[in-house]
Amino acid sequence: MAVRAAVAGASGYAGGEVLRLLLAHPEVEIGALTGNSNAGQRLGTLQPHLWPLAGRVLAETTADSLAGHDVVFLALPHGQSAAVAEQLGPDVLVIDMGADFRLRDAADWEKFYGSAHAGTWPYGLPELPGARTALTGTRRIAVPGCYPTAATLALLPAYAARIVEPEAVIVAASGTSGAGKAPKPHLLGSEVMGSMSPYGVGGGHRHTPEMMQNLGAVAGRPVTVSFTPTLAPMPRGILATCSAKAVAGVSAQAVRAAYEKAYADEPFVHLLPEGQWPATAAVHGSNAVQVQVAYDEAAGRVIAISAIDNLTKGTAGGAVQSMNLALGLAETTGLSTIGVAP
Amino acid sequence: MAVRAAVAGASGYAGGEVLRLLLAHPEVEIGALTGNSNAGQRLGTLQPHLWPLAGRVLAETTADSLAGHDVVFLALPHGQSAAVAEQLGPDVLVIDMGADFRLRDAADWEKFYGSAHAGTWPYGLPELPGARTALTGTRRIAVPGCYPTAATLALLPAYAARIVEPEAVIVAASGTSGAGKAPKPHLLGSEVMGSMSPYGVGGGHRHTPEMMQNLGAVAGRPVTVSFTPTLAPMPRGILATCSAKAVAGVSAQAVRAAYEKAYADEPFVHLLPEGQWPATAAVHGSNAVQVQVAYDEAAGRVIAISAIDNLTKGTAGGAVQSMNLALGLAETTGLSTIGVAP
Amino acid sequence: MAVRAAVAGASGYAGGEVLRLLLAHPEVEIGALTGNSNAGQRLGTLQPHLWPLAGRVLAETTADSLAGHDVVFLALPHGQSAAVAEQLGPDVLVIDMGADFRLRDAADWEKFYGSAHAGTWPYGLPELPGARTALTGTRRIAVPGCYPTAATLALLPAYAARIVEPEAVIVAASGTSGAGKAPKPHLLGSEVMGSMSPYGVGGGHRHTPEMMQNLGAVAGRPVTVSFTPTLAPMPRGILATCSAKAVAGVSAQAVRAAYEKAYADEPFVHLLPEGQWPATAAVHGSNAVQVQVAYDEAAGRVIAISAIDNLTKGTAGGAVQSMNLALGLAETTGLSTIGVAP
Amino acid sequence: MAVRAAVAGASGYAGGEVLRLLLAHPEVEIGALTGNSNAGQRLGTLQPHLWPLAGRVLAETTADSLAGHDVVFLALPHGQSAAVAEQLGPDVLVIDMGADFRLRDAADWEKFYGSAHAGTWPYGLPELPGARTALTGTRRIAVPGCYPTAATLALLPAYAARIVEPEAVIVAASGTSGAGKAPKPHLLGSEVMGSMSPYGVGGGHRHTPEMMQNLGAVAGRPVTVSFTPTLAPMPRGILATCSAKAVAGVSAQAVRAAYEKAYADEPFVHLLPEGQWPATAAVHGSNAVQVQVAYDEAAGRVIAISAIDNLTKGTAGGAVQSMNLALGLAETTGLSTIGVAP
Repeated sequence: MAVRAAVAGASGYAGGEVLRLLLAHPEVEIGALTGNSNAGQRLGTLQPHLWPLAGRVLAETTADSLAGHDVVFLALPHGQSAAVAEQLGPDVLVIDMGADFRLRDAADWEKFYGSAHAGTWPYGLPELPGARTALTGTRRIAVPGCYPTAATLALLPAYAARIVEPEAVIVAASGTSGAGKAPKPHLLGSEVMGSMSPYGVGGGHRHTPEMMQNLGAVAGRPVTVSFTPTLAPMPRGILATCSAKAVAGVSAQAVRAAYEKAYADEPFVHLLPEGQWPATAAVHGSNAVQVQVAYDEAAGRVIAISAIDNLTKGTAGGAVQSMNLALGLAETTGLSTIGVAP
Repeated sequence: MAVRAAVAGASGYAGGEVLRLLLAHPEVEIGALTGNSNAGQRLGTLQPHLWPLAGRVLAETTADSLAGHDVVFLALPHGQSAAVAEQLGPDVLVIDMGADFRLRDAADWEKFYGSAHAGTWPYGLPELPGARTALTGTRRIAVPGCYPTAATLALLPAYAARIVEPEAVIVAASGTSGAGKAPKPHLLGSEVMGSMSPYGVGGGHRHTPEMMQNLGAVAGRPVTVSFTPTLAPMPRGILATCSAKAVAGVSAQAVRAAYEKAYADEPFVHLLPEGQWPATAAVHGSNAVQVQVAYDEAAGRVIAISAIDNLTKGTAGGAVQSMNLALGLAETTGLSTIGVAP
Repeated sequence: MAVRAAVAGASGYAGGEVLRLLLAHPEVEIGALTGNSNAGQRLGTLQPHLWPLAGRVLAETTADSLAGHDVVFLALPHGQSAAVAEQLGPDVLVIDMGADFRLRDAADWEKFYGSAHAGTWPYGLPELPGARTALTGTRRIAVPGCYPTAATLALLPAYAARIVEPEAVIVAASGTSGAGKAPKPHLLGSEVMGSMSPYGVGGGHRHTPEMMQNLGAVAGRPVTVSFTPTLAPMPRGILATCSAKAVAGVSAQAVRAAYEKAYADEPFVHLLPEGQWPATAAVHGSNAVQVQVAYDEAAGRVIAISAIDNLTKGTAGGAVQSMNLALGLAETTGLSTIGVAP
Repeated sequence: MAVRAAVAGASGYAGGEVLRLLLAHPEVEIGALTGNSNAGQRLGTLQPHLWPLAGRVLAETTADSLAGHDVVFLALPHGQSAAVAEQLGPDVLVIDMGADFRLRDAADWEKFYGSAHAGTWPYGLPELPGARTALTGTRRIAVPGCYPTAATLALLPAYAARIVEPEAVIVAASGTSGAGKAPKPHLLGSEVMGSMSPYGVGGGHRHTPEMMQNLGAVAGRPVTVSFTPTLAPMPRGILATCSAKAVAGVSAQAVRAAYEKAYADEPFVHLLPEGQWPATAAVHGSNAVQVQVAYDEAAGRVIAISAIDNLTKGTAGGAVQSMNLALGLAETTGLSTIGVAP
């Protein structure tokens, strides 16, 4: 008896990616697909790669069109998820791929998003301590942001082992799909091919408080984050270069040991052999995370670098991974660790 | 009881792609992996995206290392497959992803490859008339070239319906993985990003006689091909723009009807709705083929365009599709029509 | 005493490129810059690469703002140039980088553009027979389309020498800047990186009648053109792969001789040595044209391939080259044949 | 009377770029071009974009072939410049684009390069305090590394104004041409397109001591640098994201003021208006440097970001800028601040 899933916001990049994954999920049957400005159009025109669904027509995103499903994925602009979720009832598993329910601190929400805080749902990053327990059986999941997923998994072992100071510097390069499908001049192919540029510099990016929330929870004390995102000339992928000062007495061996211990049993996080570095191409289209760490003795810093696919592990893959936990399925069901390379 | 498969030439792009597909194939267990210059190295270093096989070490490509498998995929430089195949015995399914056994005409082989012709094996393009019968139960398969796969599937319905003259003009753009993994200056990222260039112009490309063989077989008479390949700044994908003069009396409706008839039941070939054009991104990593056709009345030509992934349907996916037929499995087993986009 | 030049439509790709070239032109002083939706904005925000003009603010495109210049470049949507040109008076050199005045045949214009024909101005492709005479001293110039520039220069020697039949097949790959700066979903970086796709297939592209006009003039009889444009994952560049059947009795030597004769004295067109093929990267940002030709004896076709930068020789560089002729300056003034590579 | 210049290593990316710039330099005449493995080949094959030099044939790199020039640019593997320079005599201006003479500290050289230190030449970064004086009239110039150029110019005003602590964190993304033209598997287009990856992590990159030398000189005390380079999918460009903790009492206004003061009169360094961020595309092919700075109050860090073209300002443009100073020419002669965009 298949799990019946609907996707609200099926025409965008997050919606398309969750559909790509659900098509390969053995326990899921795809139900309603909805959109707003694209309602009434064939999915074959909007998402030509999703061939088996080409003939499907998008419905309006309403409580009616989303009714009657076991799981509803929300890929909506922020601020719209609460209203939809309320109408779906407490027995439906609602998985919000937007930002609305990620932050615990209402003041943070209001500062970074400028609206009233909708609440906090169980946070869909199973690799965080305690997260698997919180996700099992839940009917509400807040999927992490793509940058916080990459940065948290890069630094988690260092903060868990208390080998670094609580001030992190994070510089991340993202593929352009992270900026969404709404056409804007600076996202044109002509502008992004052959160019790197930063944005939201100086603490303004909305993913900053989410990183501080995650790393602070791991560290057991507040962690300050200096975060600079950059736009890279590639469709997918995040490479997060993260560092923090090592605490006194740390050795390269201790750093390595902390990472080996943290990720020994994680199905999706791959600590690379020493000397091999993450590459976004290697995780393209997969739920895998590549992590590597080095101790720069001269600078006194631990450098941890992760590569994810921003649409898969960074959004839709993380959503399906958490869905599996919520529904009592094996966590890796329908998810691949094999990237499409070259 | 799983089919046990070995891959000779596992460090290259074709070998890596067949392994990516076999990892997702429910009936196959991956056995020996071999290489030449890379023998002794971990696959994790050579193909970092194939995480589940990261710890495997490449053996030398010898009869011994390849013995004891049900299927052996050969991803070798041309001229080397015959010797290996002979040693494997007639009961092993040998699938050659190189060129050695594709051509029927020994003179063509000698002219284009400059060596003695090794022979002709059943040709692994199931969409050709009669091919499924020939492939069922066979123990030798010659996998088509990537350009011939794209061009043949673009023009097959036109020649089958005899609506075009036997002189085709084919201009195709290929991603750089088609040129292989051996490092050469003109294949450096610095050289190919932001650039388009042709090569092998004027009839010299080795895939030309293979296209003529396929289209001639479909048309029931010799077909001349003018083929110009170009290198495009993308890792994967072929876009083949093919045309031929329409025979007298042809209408746009007749052209459309010929294509609808030819591909109504093909599981991997998708004739797009009128007005929608193929894009290589839509088939990225999948075994799907997008086809569209138009009749240019002013020029009197039928224009047929196809998009494939050169490594999947163009090489390793076509190999697995044919393997399925040879082994009596459902033709689509382990193969996806869903591209990884964007 | 400098030539004073205004640019109408300075915020787009054509306007930006003409400004880039004029900044390096020793005889030109840059006057008014105008826009429509962007009027009132600093050029530094709209065209951050044009540093010396960063503080300039765009005026509205009106007769007043464009008055008082020796030369006015129009980079406007088609249909708007005639009205502006009328107001500028007959002594001002008006250079239209749009399509309005390219076609001689009013019926062609109406069929492809769906509006009334505005007229025909001297055509700014100096390499065409008689064009330099027509351009010298003129006060109105219609700059050719980018695809017609590439295709005409590829096939011109073959038609001039009457060695090919009057039916040409042209498949061209263009960088995305050819599609302009107005943001549309299919032009997003996420969509175009890693993908090739065709558009306007089957004779529908508006550059088709312009190619027929040019090649017909060279051949001295009507030439039919089958033209398929494709979008390539690069910001700039056109690679035009053109072919036509050779007439009876043609030899490879005769083909080569025709091309050597045609381009021996052209300052911007470089016939490459035999065996070397054009690449768009080699002409990036320059007014150079790379051309190569081959005779495919088996297919009986002459294959001619050209590479240009669509924004330079294909638009703004061609405009400046023609301006030089109109003003009596040396044709190459301010123009480079040196591409920015890699 | 033209300055006569030779280029040793004319077939690589640095050599090609210096030739591109010298072709546009009004005071320079290009003399001998030399190579090693490519000696005897036409430049037209090796550097097809440098059309005016296409017929030149590379000589062997010897004292004889380089004799008789006013300026000799060395684009050689490190360790080879000293021997060549000695033979050229003290009156020839020798400009080393390699690393041999950049470092003052012999121990640093030996640690990072593993060979004996050849010495220290005047350092060709005119924007450093005192550098213009040191370069004027010199006959030996050590051209800075590309990453140190970008990072130094991003952080120079902060260290000059003593508003940041002496521990810098630098994460930089570079185009692939920075890795040179020698073909290696990880630099293939198939590998780099669509991928970001780091390398030389943990303090190992040879440009780290050069950054410390520059920033320490500006700060007047030792500065520790944590440097992580990443490879970005673009041919050219460096985006350097640099940060350091602000000293107590710093305000956003003070940060801005420091940058405005430092770069008010620099001809190539452009401090962008507040809110506009650097992009490598905007400086493509030009000697311009885009800089922006922000003060992240929550994290207590100053974030300074620069964009350069690694081959122009990062190598060959910086070399020509320093040559101009050495020869008493205007510093900007033959150099452009106008990028080729899009």
